Amino acid sequence: MDIGKIVGSITSVAKIEELKPLTLYLVHLLDSEFNNTGNYMVAVDTIGVGYGDIILITTGSAAKMTAVTRDVPVDTSIVARIDTEKEES
Amino acid sequence: MDIGKIVGSITSVAKIEELKPLTLYLVHLLDSEFNNTGNYMVAVDTIGVGYGDIILITTGSAAKMTAVTRDVPVDTSIVARIDTEKEES
Amino acid sequence: MDIGKIVGSITSVAKIEELKPLTLYLVHLLDSEFNNTGNYMVAVDTIGVGYGDIILITTGSAAKMTAVTRDVPVDTSIVARIDTEKEES
Amino acid sequence: MDIGKIVGSITSVAKIEELKPLTLYLVHLLDSEFNNTGNYMVAVDTIGVGYGDIILITTGSAAKMTAVTRDVPVDTSIVARIDTEKEES
Amino acid sequence: MDIGKIVGSITSVAKIEELKPLTLYLVHLLDSEFNNTGNYMVAVDTIGVGYGDIILITTGSAAKMTAVTRDVPVDTSIVARIDTEKEES
Repeated sequence: MDIGKIVGSITSVAKIEELKPLTLYLVHLLDSEFNNTGNYMVAVDTIGVGYGDIILITTGSAAKMTAVTRDVPVDTSIVARIDTEKEES
Repeated sequence: MDIGKIVGSITSVAKIEELKPLTLYLVHLLDSEFNNTGNYMVAVDTIGVGYGDIILITTGSAAKMTAVTRDVPVDTSIVARIDTEKEES
Repeated sequence: MDIGKIVGSITSVAKIEELKPLTLYLVHLLDSEFNNTGNYMVAVDTIGVGYGDIILITTGSAAKMTAVTRDVPVDTSIVARIDTEKEES
Repeated sequence: MDIGKIVGSITSVAKIEELKPLTLYLVHLLDSEFNNTGNYMVAVDTIGVGYGDIILITTGSAAKMTAVTRDVPVDTSIVARIDTEKEES
Repeated sequence: MDIGKIVGSITSVAKIEELKPLTLYLVHLLDSEFNNTGNYMVAVDTIGVGYGDIILITTGSAAKMTAVTRDVPVDTSIVARIDTEKEES
């Protein structure tokens, strides 16, 4: 799993049905000292997170195995909020 | 999921049967500010998009779980059009 | 999916049974202008391609879902020949 | 599979139910001479490891096939402790 | 699939049960001219290979679909020995 920070959300009217009830966040990927790597992912919220939160992401086939994403065609899900002092980007 | 921009289409006569009804687009991958990264993917359209659209891509096993791609041997599907001011490449 | 060019084949006597009936090609990966990226993959032919062909590759779990590769332990399959003027490497 | 070194743990109160009984370690990825690569993963412990251990990681769909992680939405699991002289980071 | 060269083995006492009967090799990844790339993987032997052999690797969900690795939590398996003049590393 990777560590990321919520920095924005994705708005979309035209999308597949399964995505409509879900919240999609723009996540900056962090290194192991929680510094920005310059890479990002778009990830589904499965636990209720918000802007600035440091979070844990699971990718690949596991991303569609949470209670919220079961069998939804997504490849990146937020599965935990990490308890740590937050950095400002 | 990744953010991309539709920049072309792929034409092919010789292909596996499952791909014949599908539209394959050439997609430039964008960074989190929607600038071109220099990388690309070939992706299946599942929602009806067009040239210049900024779109959301799902990859891996999830790509073959949309209504359009179920059990089709593809690894990249377009699952949403992102509502944002479009950039010209 | 990625775009590649057939540049060679892989010969092997000692291999798992499932690979024996299959043709394995050495494929150079191309960028979106069909220039060589310097990267490669070894891919299974599922449609009948030949040297110099520009082809479409599917990777990951989808690679073992074609009629030719079903349940074969491969991670890269050639699923289409792209209709374009060929480049010489 | 990749080789890593346990350098920290991840603490989290808000997380999906399936993760609650599991220990999540911060793992630095090592090269083939066991030097730090600068990359990391967050991985689930399935065998009982500790700080400084050099370990083997399995990723992707295989990560959720151990006795401890079966059907848990994780993408990286620790599956062995490698017997070698330990490096200090 | 990728091309690699067997350069070492991994010894481990503490590991998950499913790994105990398997041989794990350290594999240097090669480029398409069989030169060392500087990257490596740890891979399961499914055909009987040895030091210095040039081999073909399959990764991801396919790695656990050989007769030897079925349902074992591994992500990289050796599926063929490539017939070629061997390089010395």
